[in-house]
Amino acid sequence: MDHEPLTYAASGVDPEVAERAVRGFAGAVARTHDERVLGGIGGFGGMFRAQFQDMESPVLVSSIDGVGTKTAVAAMAGDFSQLGYDIVNHCVNDILCQGAQPLFFLDYFGCSRLDPVVIDQVVSSAAAACRDAGCALLGGETAEMPGVYVDGEIDVVGAIVGVVESARRLPRSDPRSGDKLIGVASDGLHTNGYTLARQALFSVAGHSISDQLEGMEGTLGQELLKPHRTYLSSVWPLLAQESVLAAAHITGGGIAGNLVRVIPSNLQAVVETMTWNPPTIFQHIQRDGGIESAEMFRTFNMGIGMILVVDQDAAGEIVQALNESGEHAAEIGQLRNGPHDVQLV
Amino acid sequence: MDHEPLTYAASGVDPEVAERAVRGFAGAVARTHDERVLGGIGGFGGMFRAQFQDMESPVLVSSIDGVGTKTAVAAMAGDFSQLGYDIVNHCVNDILCQGAQPLFFLDYFGCSRLDPVVIDQVVSSAAAACRDAGCALLGGETAEMPGVYVDGEIDVVGAIVGVVESARRLPRSDPRSGDKLIGVASDGLHTNGYTLARQALFSVAGHSISDQLEGMEGTLGQELLKPHRTYLSSVWPLLAQESVLAAAHITGGGIAGNLVRVIPSNLQAVVETMTWNPPTIFQHIQRDGGIESAEMFRTFNMGIGMILVVDQDAAGEIVQALNESGEHAAEIGQLRNGPHDVQLV
Repeated sequence: MDHEPLTYAASGVDPEVAERAVRGFAGAVARTHDERVLGGIGGFGGMFRAQFQDMESPVLVSSIDGVGTKTAVAAMAGDFSQLGYDIVNHCVNDILCQGAQPLFFLDYFGCSRLDPVVIDQVVSSAAAACRDAGCALLGGETAEMPGVYVDGEIDVVGAIVGVVESARRLPRSDPRSGDKLIGVASDGLHTNGYTLARQALFSVAGHSISDQLEGMEGTLGQELLKPHRTYLSSVWPLLAQESVLAAAHITGGGIAGNLVRVIPSNLQAVVETMTWNPPTIFQHIQRDGGIESAEMFRTFNMGIGMILVVDQDAAGEIVQALNESGEHAAEIGQLRNGPHDVQLV
Repeated sequence: MDHEPLTYAASGVDPEVAERAVRGFAGAVARTHDERVLGGIGGFGGMFRAQFQDMESPVLVSSIDGVGTKTAVAAMAGDFSQLGYDIVNHCVNDILCQGAQPLFFLDYFGCSRLDPVVIDQVVSSAAAACRDAGCALLGGETAEMPGVYVDGEIDVVGAIVGVVESARRLPRSDPRSGDKLIGVASDGLHTNGYTLARQALFSVAGHSISDQLEGMEGTLGQELLKPHRTYLSSVWPLLAQESVLAAAHITGGGIAGNLVRVIPSNLQAVVETMTWNPPTIFQHIQRDGGIESAEMFRTFNMGIGMILVVDQDAAGEIVQALNESGEHAAEIGQLRNGPHDVQLV
């Protein structure tokens, strides 16, 4: 043999780094567990008691998602400490649109070479977001994949499982012409459109991650890394009322692409875009990239993180309840008879 | 404006490609659904009835995992048509180790630029594997992340949820000294150790993906892309017997790293490695990379895909049942009093 014996570590994967990382955040993960979680950390599968005593006909609601190239902005800024909030909150909002409250979450972290600091920031923040959502961080996986990921870049994926009483599933089948659309403000880009935003802000305009652009309080990095907002604590209590008919999480595809998913096929949604001002960051992206407005609305949430479809008679009261819960909410449109689409006017 | 308006597609993400891809495999996904799945495809969360009528105390068991750089071998071979089996079967085996049968699965596909043929191969094969496992493909996500993934490379992630009657959860707490270890043959590398294997076979030895190495029936690509074997149909029926005390899925960390997770803290597992012959592919990897045996056993399954810990009196009967189900199974060791570890002798 004329060369050193090859090892897994020398080939680019060091299982001991992953093991040390797991020991580092095991405490934070364990603090998301309660008596419904059986067996602790380290099993081949996480175990969660399926006891839904108060429900007649429980339905599990599940979703898987990623945070897109927000990870690339985190890598530019060297700050991965919010990405866990991003992935958990994204997933929480998704199942909230079916009326579900979260039960447990699993995370996946892919990279070229495992950096213990990076993974700790991601998983610890996911654990914190899980605690906020009353959700167990039930399992996870880290994957070191040299040659698949660009050096220094990561992917962050999460899967969530929640539960809803069958009779309370959203969307309800009974929205009618005249029912109202309530927009709830986002905290920026959340987790969508980062590839276009990076192109406009960094490649075209030549901004740096530490620049402070006109009208923005912090740096561009801080603005772009604001975590995905969760609407669980404000929207969930409203779902006990039958006047919330549907909810759309505004992610990839923007307002039109997501709202159309929850309205009946005989109705058209009309969104009045003059009823709110998109946050400054979107104006910078649009101007720097010379991006058409229609493309902006197809790609970004434009300041609206969630839209509730509500009974027309209850709209005022629901807007008020949302604002009292700390949201910025307003009526932004309504349903009418027409082709099954969303008109931005 | 002195340049063309920037668009999401021009920046590297084309939502229409993803939408076309989803339409392409929607039929295959829908065929994994039965009356337990509510609401079809396209919701913000997949919905699955939590009705476990025959169970007194159902426990949900969940796991998330990837297929590692087996994706890079698939890219070399231009054949992604087995990766869906890999990710589904990997997840199915993981929760089987807790005694669970699968309910539903969600897939995630990350890449630099979406290739409709590649995603169709991955998701269609995942749907086929889900059907084999009696499991609904309940949701999924595709992410186009230029700058994060190396061009032409992909990541494939999956999350699974299954259920087990609480009293039948594995591992049972009662393995004793003298209880037997039954090894069930793998179909090759499954989904672990590919970075080391690629380094040894391609970088060091200079083989090509289409080479046919000594003692192997097909090409190196065919050998390396053999899908992860599922043990659901052979092992699940045995779990009704109380004589199956624990099960370990042999993945990253090899026999020792996985078996130790399911044996009681007062017992030591002794695995007699001379009781089986590792498949030829492992000999090629070891020789080409000049890899020490201990490192091989830490990194690869070495021909054993699952180990069952069984009551010593039932071992013969369980080996016979496994072999009659189409597995290659044999007694490969036993438990004894000693420090909590796994000895390969």
